[in-house]
Amino acid sequence: MSTARTAVPGHDAPPEAIVAPLVAVTPGRRRTAAEEARTLVASTSIGSLATLSSGRNPWASVVAYGTLPDGAPVLFVSTLAEHGRNLRRDPRTSLSVAEQAPAGDPLDSGRVTLAGRAERPEGELAEQALAAHVAAVPGATAYAAFGDFSLWVLRVERVRWVGGFGRMDSATAAEYAAAEPDPTAPGAAGAVAHLNDDHADALLAMAHGLAGHPDATAARCARIDRYGLDLAIAGPRGDATARVGFEHPAAHPGDLRAATIELTRRARAALPPPTP
Amino acid sequence: MSTARTAVPGHDAPPEAIVAPLVAVTPGRRRTAAEEARTLVASTSIGSLATLSSGRNPWASVVAYGTLPDGAPVLFVSTLAEHGRNLRRDPRTSLSVAEQAPAGDPLDSGRVTLAGRAERPEGELAEQALAAHVAAVPGATAYAAFGDFSLWVLRVERVRWVGGFGRMDSATAAEYAAAEPDPTAPGAAGAVAHLNDDHADALLAMAHGLAGHPDATAARCARIDRYGLDLAIAGPRGDATARVGFEHPAAHPGDLRAATIELTRRARAALPPPTP
Repeated sequence: MSTARTAVPGHDAPPEAIVAPLVAVTPGRRRTAAEEARTLVASTSIGSLATLSSGRNPWASVVAYGTLPDGAPVLFVSTLAEHGRNLRRDPRTSLSVAEQAPAGDPLDSGRVTLAGRAERPEGELAEQALAAHVAAVPGATAYAAFGDFSLWVLRVERVRWVGGFGRMDSATAAEYAAAEPDPTAPGAAGAVAHLNDDHADALLAMAHGLAGHPDATAARCARIDRYGLDLAIAGPRGDATARVGFEHPAAHPGDLRAATIELTRRARAALPPPTP
Repeated sequence: MSTARTAVPGHDAPPEAIVAPLVAVTPGRRRTAAEEARTLVASTSIGSLATLSSGRNPWASVVAYGTLPDGAPVLFVSTLAEHGRNLRRDPRTSLSVAEQAPAGDPLDSGRVTLAGRAERPEGELAEQALAAHVAAVPGATAYAAFGDFSLWVLRVERVRWVGGFGRMDSATAAEYAAAEPDPTAPGAAGAVAHLNDDHADALLAMAHGLAGHPDATAARCARIDRYGLDLAIAGPRGDATARVGFEHPAAHPGDLRAATIELTRRARAALPPPTP
């Protein structure tokens, strides 16, 4: 293998002609791996847990979880289940959370592994943990009184995030705990669809004026988040991807619209005057 | 806890008033745990793998898989990914597969764990394994030539299936290998919706004539498979569930319609004559 490539755990980006910008640009800000992980973990309440079965065999199983304010997952499991017995025997565990119902190739979508140790919370923390679990998994109230169910807090020690082909990074426990889930995430899929359906001209202006591709013939929004957009650009030289950033991070899903309008205005202002 | 209850790994059925039939009936045939597991594994190509990281810490991560004719999953992973390095260090592993996009509570939906050892296939088996993986994960052809990617066959030693609240069982490796995925599964969701939308009278006739609930006031189809239907029954005494079986197992998705018509005919023939 002499070809330079960006490696992805388990799979790689298909070979593609990715062309460079014609104009040097500073790529827009992106979410950190810790922010990506917090956002993904906050987006659902179902994941897959790895525990150690008898003989230290790794055991994968589906679990529901809630989340404490520092992002630590809270599990509520029965000792009648193998993973419940496993945690009592050995608290080492990790939780894998995958993007739910990704629009395209599931291998080109987000997932994160949180690895660490499960601890039984006590006192006030136990109350907080139960409340966090029930907030995410309302059905859990029905089992709260069963004696074989136990609360566990996964103390995160290591975080590995994969966003898709060529997008991956690790985060420390401290980075993960300090990061904030992207508050605009619930509105992102709708915003992407709206931009691609109704504002192809604005996206093309961003490719021309802000992404360094003045020869682009088409641009689509691949992703949007609080900091900006990922563009998929087509042009006579081939395909390209680019990141264009908002002036200020968006704080609510409703802010994405105003931030995108400002970005479009800036892109059009940066365009060279039309050839006479 | 003195109350008798059916335990579910990780969670239990909410307490409900489930009433008994008024007429003794023989419940219809159900898929075995091995058939449930094979059907679930065949329904998607994305799962979560548990492997052993350095220090024998359990590591959960998303993987794509294909399936050999005996149901053994085929992985194709890079040593640049932690799970790829883990398998080289210690082949013990398990794969958790969850029902994709379940309609209701994800804890009341299907999942299965296949536990065993990963082996590097050689010779003809390697070709067969690569073909099985690529059939399920077409994008994998793009990495087939990369030197850091390896094929692994998960030799299944132990199977644990959970269908939802109160539905779970284990299967041996031999039972799993010998079982067939339900050939009608691709048509099941559509058949359930059609029955509930347009044939409430037929479902109620089944509850009256075949499920032992002649006092039922409504019945819905909760699930359908090659062997029959699960009914959710409402009546003056409370709620109930029942299994009604087809005369012959269905072999194709298109057979569900004829089998259900035959079941309805049998249910109506079994009804007591209307009170004059």
